Amino acid sequence: MKIQGTHYRTIWPHADGTSVEIIDQTQLPHAFVTARLSAAEHAAEAIRSMMVRGAPLIGATAAYGIAFAMREDASDEALDAAHDSLLATRPTAVNLRWALARMRNALRNRPRAERAEVAWNEAASICEDDVETCRKIGEHGLEIFREAAAKKNDTPLNILTHCNAGWLACVDWGTALAPVYMAHDLGIDLHIWVDETRPRNQGASLTAFELGSHGVPHTIIADNAGGHFMRQGAVDLCIVGTDRVTANGDVANKIGTYLKALAAKDNDVAFYVALPSSTIDWTLKSGDAIPIEERSQDEVTKLTGRLPDGSVASVEISAPGSAAANPGFDVTPARLVTGFITERGFCAANAQGLRGLFPDGQSIK
Amino acid sequence: MKIQGTHYRTIWPHADGTSVEIIDQTQLPHAFVTARLSAAEHAAEAIRSMMVRGAPLIGATAAYGIAFAMREDASDEALDAAHDSLLATRPTAVNLRWALARMRNALRNRPRAERAEVAWNEAASICEDDVETCRKIGEHGLEIFREAAAKKNDTPLNILTHCNAGWLACVDWGTALAPVYMAHDLGIDLHIWVDETRPRNQGASLTAFELGSHGVPHTIIADNAGGHFMRQGAVDLCIVGTDRVTANGDVANKIGTYLKALAAKDNDVAFYVALPSSTIDWTLKSGDAIPIEERSQDEVTKLTGRLPDGSVASVEISAPGSAAANPGFDVTPARLVTGFITERGFCAANAQGLRGLFPDGQSIK
Repeated sequence: MKIQGTHYRTIWPHADGTSVEIIDQTQLPHAFVTARLSAAEHAAEAIRSMMVRGAPLIGATAAYGIAFAMREDASDEALDAAHDSLLATRPTAVNLRWALARMRNALRNRPRAERAEVAWNEAASICEDDVETCRKIGEHGLEIFREAAAKKNDTPLNILTHCNAGWLACVDWGTALAPVYMAHDLGIDLHIWVDETRPRNQGASLTAFELGSHGVPHTIIADNAGGHFMRQGAVDLCIVGTDRVTANGDVANKIGTYLKALAAKDNDVAFYVALPSSTIDWTLKSGDAIPIEERSQDEVTKLTGRLPDGSVASVEISAPGSAAANPGFDVTPARLVTGFITERGFCAANAQGLRGLFPDGQSIK
Repeated sequence: MKIQGTHYRTIWPHADGTSVEIIDQTQLPHAFVTARLSAAEHAAEAIRSMMVRGAPLIGATAAYGIAFAMREDASDEALDAAHDSLLATRPTAVNLRWALARMRNALRNRPRAERAEVAWNEAASICEDDVETCRKIGEHGLEIFREAAAKKNDTPLNILTHCNAGWLACVDWGTALAPVYMAHDLGIDLHIWVDETRPRNQGASLTAFELGSHGVPHTIIADNAGGHFMRQGAVDLCIVGTDRVTANGDVANKIGTYLKALAAKDNDVAFYVALPSSTIDWTLKSGDAIPIEERSQDEVTKLTGRLPDGSVASVEISAPGSAAANPGFDVTPARLVTGFITERGFCAANAQGLRGLFPDGQSIK
């Protein structure tokens, strides 16, 4: 999508044909900086340090990581080693596993001499597929937004989102925000409540940044405030992304998603989850089995921002000596989800709904 | 309660007999600084700027504000003017209205010449009553904690609290934290999950500070994390304070309380609200009528903390140009509350429960 009128993706091949460029998302919204990745370990570190984040973008970056590894050493052992080390970077998002499996499948039966080129092309293809998948998610979500907007009388359609499931989390478009961009570009009057999404504040820093850069009306709120606005009738629908959906429709997503889903249910507000089918983990029966990443307590006790002189600094906000706990994700039970918006359309958040759209029961390219 | 072994209250008369000292809570946890109040406008400004906060402490500070006003001018007009200007400082907490009404009632029929002294003594008496009320809340809460702790097998009783309803919110003891201190001092093994409580972070800055200063085991978590921990079975009970309870048992409290009450209900975790009867607003039938304070968006977009060199700075954390909304409180419907812990004991969170404990239907000193 656009930043000040210029179209960007989150990851793109450099002109040298051997490296890729990414937007360093740890520096947003304070600075717009790109970085170059050219080795598997670069890609792994970019994922670990959250220079790239968001389930689809993690998958795309890992795919290029495999391509870099194949250029160094195209043996089966090197492929397995790169696969395993990239897989270990983040435990919760399943797109990472999906993208790595797709890369390995594409390479396994190829002669070593071809692997570097095949891997590079397959990674590019994963990126193109992600853009197309997100575009389709956007179109299907747009139908839902249109219907909801038609019930509003000259007031904006108020949509609440948590964390960042926008184009910065994908290659382009986004999942939850794809229909937002499409609706906005078509002139549908909408306004987004952006949960700041502590502790890493991806809402206040990334979602607000990308909505603002594209010109979509939005307001940042503390994560605590969403329930209040739903009680006040100020939220027409919620839409979020996800890092993993299990076969029964349970949803792992950024910590705090569960609380918003509870509030939506309590106030009869629709709660949609937008996802590419690569986010479905058909191997897990329920969300209880999803590994939840425990992250550094520093993310809770310290925050980075701009000082009055414009320089960027990290400040410690908590009482000195107090420890913090920092689970990165929570699981929203399927019973709280109105439905899934996928590249194949809408379905109910249960096993039947998922199998109905994806009868082959595995990720579709 | 204690800070590094020394006993403090949040407000106390200065030796000069005409001013009071307070702890400047806007500087916690980064610095422990006291301030002196000696005029009604000082008291009003201390409430507005949140140097003092917490429903009971706001009431106590406003009472001294009336006493300062009476020393300047003991006329009925001055009394009414001070009453009204202090009442306008914060809209949600009802203890403020209660304390100001108590002061006016104590002064109305007194000769002007006596009013300054009567007011000073009445304000001191409000403070003493608050300490005694909180002590009783602590004793009643302690019974509930004892029962819950008895069901744990050599593991700590895990209690989640939101915002700060500790001694820093009152004159001493606290409301929600009074039973925590009593249980801890009696050797009951407990651990507190402290919601950081964005946007002003009273949990991470004040609750963590006072628990740490007194030696109570605790862990700070992002507001988003409480639901996850409840789903994991890591929370045995929740206890919070309140700024206003309506006659039907609805609870206004710090923004985000409602979300935690929903999660507690969804996971069969008891959700207690601790309050002095001065927090009950018998004039309102339901929480929908409670005015919700809208605060500055700067509280969402900026945060204050310690730089690596120990100095204190404010940083802007949000995307430049994005607006924020900042409601200070939300309303938790009575149906989500397990019960109230008051100075007269426990009661159900409904009109019958409240009337049963307080048959006179008004605040009890």
